[in-house]
Amino acid sequence: METFQVAIIGGGPAGYTAAEIAGKAGLRVVLFEKNKLGGVCLNEGCIPTKTLLYSAKMYNSMQSAAKYGVAVSGSVIDLKKVMSRKSKVIRKLMLGIKAKLVAQNVSIITGEAYIKNRHTICCEGIDYTCDALIVCTGSETFVPSVSGLEAVGYWTHYEALENTTIPQSLVVVGGGVIGMEFVSFFSSIGVQVTVIEMMGEILGGIDCELAALLRADYAKRGVKFMLSTKVTKFEKQDKLVRIYYENEHDSGYVETEKVLMSTGRRPVMKGFGLENLNLELTSRGLIQTDKHMQTSQQGVYVCGDLNGVSLLAHTAVREAEIAVHHLLGGEGEMNYQAVPGVVYTNPEVASVGATEEFLEAQGLSYRSVKIPMTFSGRFVAENEGINGLCKVLVDNTNTILGVHILGNPASELIVLAGMMIQDHRKLPEWERYIFPHPTVGEIFKELSLL
Amino acid sequence: METFQVAIIGGGPAGYTAAEIAGKAGLRVVLFEKNKLGGVCLNEGCIPTKTLLYSAKMYNSMQSAAKYGVAVSGSVIDLKKVMSRKSKVIRKLMLGIKAKLVAQNVSIITGEAYIKNRHTICCEGIDYTCDALIVCTGSETFVPSVSGLEAVGYWTHYEALENTTIPQSLVVVGGGVIGMEFVSFFSSIGVQVTVIEMMGEILGGIDCELAALLRADYAKRGVKFMLSTKVTKFEKQDKLVRIYYENEHDSGYVETEKVLMSTGRRPVMKGFGLENLNLELTSRGLIQTDKHMQTSQQGVYVCGDLNGVSLLAHTAVREAEIAVHHLLGGEGEMNYQAVPGVVYTNPEVASVGATEEFLEAQGLSYRSVKIPMTFSGRFVAENEGINGLCKVLVDNTNTILGVHILGNPASELIVLAGMMIQDHRKLPEWERYIFPHPTVGEIFKELSLL
Repeated sequence: METFQVAIIGGGPAGYTAAEIAGKAGLRVVLFEKNKLGGVCLNEGCIPTKTLLYSAKMYNSMQSAAKYGVAVSGSVIDLKKVMSRKSKVIRKLMLGIKAKLVAQNVSIITGEAYIKNRHTICCEGIDYTCDALIVCTGSETFVPSVSGLEAVGYWTHYEALENTTIPQSLVVVGGGVIGMEFVSFFSSIGVQVTVIEMMGEILGGIDCELAALLRADYAKRGVKFMLSTKVTKFEKQDKLVRIYYENEHDSGYVETEKVLMSTGRRPVMKGFGLENLNLELTSRGLIQTDKHMQTSQQGVYVCGDLNGVSLLAHTAVREAEIAVHHLLGGEGEMNYQAVPGVVYTNPEVASVGATEEFLEAQGLSYRSVKIPMTFSGRFVAENEGINGLCKVLVDNTNTILGVHILGNPASELIVLAGMMIQDHRKLPEWERYIFPHPTVGEIFKELSLL
Repeated sequence: METFQVAIIGGGPAGYTAAEIAGKAGLRVVLFEKNKLGGVCLNEGCIPTKTLLYSAKMYNSMQSAAKYGVAVSGSVIDLKKVMSRKSKVIRKLMLGIKAKLVAQNVSIITGEAYIKNRHTICCEGIDYTCDALIVCTGSETFVPSVSGLEAVGYWTHYEALENTTIPQSLVVVGGGVIGMEFVSFFSSIGVQVTVIEMMGEILGGIDCELAALLRADYAKRGVKFMLSTKVTKFEKQDKLVRIYYENEHDSGYVETEKVLMSTGRRPVMKGFGLENLNLELTSRGLIQTDKHMQTSQQGVYVCGDLNGVSLLAHTAVREAEIAVHHLLGGEGEMNYQAVPGVVYTNPEVASVGATEEFLEAQGLSYRSVKIPMTFSGRFVAENEGINGLCKVLVDNTNTILGVHILGNPASELIVLAGMMIQDHRKLPEWERYIFPHPTVGEIFKELSLL
């Protein structure tokens, strides 16, 4: 029987971050991963999608190169090469994670862990004891049961990321963030894409004005959007799939070669003895955590998706930091107020803090300050004929409540706004920093004057 | 005779920013510009170069697209189109500046202003009186006199930005920031470029390790660098220019079709009556300013290049803000500690705060923390086969003194470091913010753990 100070179940962003920090602090750490180090994020999520999207963006830019004075006579995207490059990127990053864990003397056990009790984890017939336990099992794709779905066959993100032939047509069921990134990829490489979304707008949770602008943009590029629409049945029709739908005005079907189900994710809570811990649950049946990510059992923490607050890799990383700091007797509380959300479409959408919809629902008063991205000289220089929007929501003391950006490189800029929100700072404070000119980030400085 | 509360001479970044803020505060403002609104920055500096560099980057990416699974055939860059797009971008941004000034009721006078005394400016035979005066005349290209130079003919940045034919070869005299951006542009579009630099390294003032890495990168792409080398003579040789040089080991000549002189800039202090103000000068003969950008004469301010501290557009903008705030009785002092510097090569270099060279020269102790940019998953996803470096210098309390980045999009990331330096913050503080995953900016969070 091997004895550790910390046992971690799951080697995704939460798990590998927790392991690295705990190891660095000198604790004896064991990390169990049943599949691949890096978890869904590295192996079938954040990283592979961004690798694919970058190739698609490059392919797209060839088509618009003439606007910038560059003529191209032919361009072809080779999905096999794109996919093999993706695997190479994953491998490289996985080796990086592994090296970091090894450097901190973390014992990495490949296999399915089973929680016997809070101090005993069993894996491949061997018991491991631990003082503290951090559960980081993450989440999995959730596909609702719809009549005929299993019979016709479908992709989840997983199959979409393994596919090497370009279909003629694709229906994406679910226009959330993950769905829209695949919409961006497949429509960019020439696939006729249709999105069927149950809600009244795509990108649920993201500022509705920006979501609508992004949708209009993709619609102009040929993507069809069916909002407030429910899928009722799937049927095989020769080589195609017929998808029956219903909405307030209409019912009918669309035919497509491929179907991608992007209908959400749910925490992984079964199959590894979690129930043996008798943890307190939330009203939604997820794991109740305190501000240190500790569960109702002392010394048992959960990080990454399991409390259901924010199912994002970077949230998981922060939760892991908080948990390990607490374990070590340090300071820090989990703060979900400034968790950025990014949609890696082209253009990107990024968001942090409150949306107008949230503030209105809460009955809170706010001021919305917004300017076109073309107020930035660099944006104009690098985005021919492209618009964008930056919106800041402030309260009556000008304290920043939320920031929402449509336009590249929103993903890299949003943390600037997140820092301001987390520190409860006011919009005019941006003025006193020197933003290099010309940069797109200067948009914040412009806003500070309004 | 027209009467104003504030007269501003020069419509570049300092001038138009001062005019906008003063106008917004309700002051009656007159702005004199003898040439074009936007100044050197908009018309022949920051903006046109970035427009050109973006086209070149796009053209370059065609050549490396295969690495990302995209095959491109027959790509051609059309310099005429690139230049006409550049003019369109300038026009669009100029109209934006004009609209902002008009919205604040700023009187814009096109013509050469002449300072009769601190309350009287004459332009085109008309006298304008003002309570306060802000001088924002900026800087101009400085070309040293070298034997034969005038006879052979040469480009400055101005001619290089108007040129529409691709030369076979180009010698860039001066490998500073402006020089290197032109090196990047011309080498990217297929010109054989040679750089002759007097100093021992390119990009004077930028972290030497990064400068050397960038130089090695361009050398690999075929650019020739002659460091510690002095140009002694120019001679016409048929259709070519022969440039004689000397260095410690060697002397000789190189032949080239075109010559670009990029040998520095100096403040514009003559020809508009500045001497009538009897301003106190610095030891270098430039204008002495206090922390509010006020000169030795009360109510007379200079912003943008004229005190010689930092000849950058974004510094000028901040100086203008400080000057107008002071004029209005507000708070704020000019702080040059966190002025970012960006080199828009590909990859970009960005820098803020102290360099190792500076700290060593001052005899200050520091710790250098550095990691490859490939620690960022997004960097790996979007930069196939490309390396990069992020270096943070901290003092013995971990307070951040300087940050230096080689790798895209360094230009957009550096302000994050500038904010930390300006607020005297410590490296580990980055940890508590949530950086979206995957982004290149996460590199700061990675560094915070080291």
